[in-house]
Amino acid sequence: MRISQLSAASGVPIPTIKYYLREGLLQPGEQTAATRAEYGEAHLRRLRLIRALLEVGRVPVTAIRQIIAAVEDETMPVHEMLGTAHYALATPVEAAADDDRHREALALVDALIGELGWQVTPEAPTRAELAQVLVRLDRLGRPASVEKLRPYAEHVARFAREREMDSVSGPREAAVESLVVGTVLYGKVLDVLRRIAHESESARRHTSGHPAAPAG
Amino acid sequence: MRISQLSAASGVPIPTIKYYLREGLLQPGEQTAATRAEYGEAHLRRLRLIRALLEVGRVPVTAIRQIIAAVEDETMPVHEMLGTAHYALATPVEAAADDDRHREALALVDALIGELGWQVTPEAPTRAELAQVLVRLDRLGRPASVEKLRPYAEHVARFAREREMDSVSGPREAAVESLVVGTVLYGKVLDVLRRIAHESESARRHTSGHPAAPAG
Repeated sequence: MRISQLSAASGVPIPTIKYYLREGLLQPGEQTAATRAEYGEAHLRRLRLIRALLEVGRVPVTAIRQIIAAVEDETMPVHEMLGTAHYALATPVEAAADDDRHREALALVDALIGELGWQVTPEAPTRAELAQVLVRLDRLGRPASVEKLRPYAEHVARFAREREMDSVSGPREAAVESLVVGTVLYGKVLDVLRRIAHESESARRHTSGHPAAPAG
Repeated sequence: MRISQLSAASGVPIPTIKYYLREGLLQPGEQTAATRAEYGEAHLRRLRLIRALLEVGRVPVTAIRQIIAAVEDETMPVHEMLGTAHYALATPVEAAADDDRHREALALVDALIGELGWQVTPEAPTRAELAQVLVRLDRLGRPASVEKLRPYAEHVARFAREREMDSVSGPREAAVESLVVGTVLYGKVLDVLRRIAHESESARRHTSGHPAAPAG
């Protein structure tokens, strides 16, 4: 298809497509004449991936370039390829003003991961991200512990194993796109559903003489 | 205790305590002399609550005033009191540019809640919040459905019922504080743990000849 058709099919404006081509994010089309190039399904898939990374993951262009290099490098194992995208989605941790507390929290995260037997690299940015939340809990006088965190960890692990990871499959490009959408948007879905469930559970516990809504 | 001791015990600076007194967020101390007031445990509990709402929930002062009025109104049922705090924590939904899509997504949220038999008020702001995420999924060519969302909903509901809601208890003030910290900070804990679990599960599935880390 021509660039105008690629734009129509993907919903990405032509100037934006040209920008992705210049930046090397989108592979060039097949040159069929001096001013004409032909694009195909691979380009559509790539545009979906770029859009997911930019709009959903808010991943900066330099990191997107690294992720795409990983997708294109067929010798890179799938797990490692997914890792480049996964790590790019982590929220950077602000410089810790309270270093001792942050170190203690990191040690707690490491202890939890070790006790659960999870396979997580030492440099995973999610370790520091979790530690930061634990520091905030500690400052509010609600220190966490391995015992307190374990049910939360087991709860998410079970769901990841039984449900979520099955959707990250298919060709390399599609797997990364699924990972980004699943991590960010289904993360939000879970967060909002959790808060809705809390309202419902609170209603069930605290109101009486108020029959539960009938199951539809 | 004197205001200086209240400041030391709570970690809140004296000028901030005076600001909360002027704003009516903190109840006045017992006047023991023309320029001296006595504060107690109730003031410490109130300061914990204000701090949780401001720092953790990022709730604006006007909404905090409403929440505190609900806490102080002993005739208001617990569920309704918790609701004022709960709704103040929702992220406001941006004006929907795409109204038809938003309406469809809202109908899907209502169908899901109805089918699960959850007790959620029609005006719960979390309905619109979830609808907004569903619109984004739809725009990415990944429309959600009741069937697709149901396992996510059942998963969070089970955990809310079995684990989470037990921590929201105690005196009215402490229950609201627990709700805020539990909703926001344990929401983040779950989100980061989920991403860590994904890395571990991906390692388990995609790497071979690589023994799992021993359970500690």
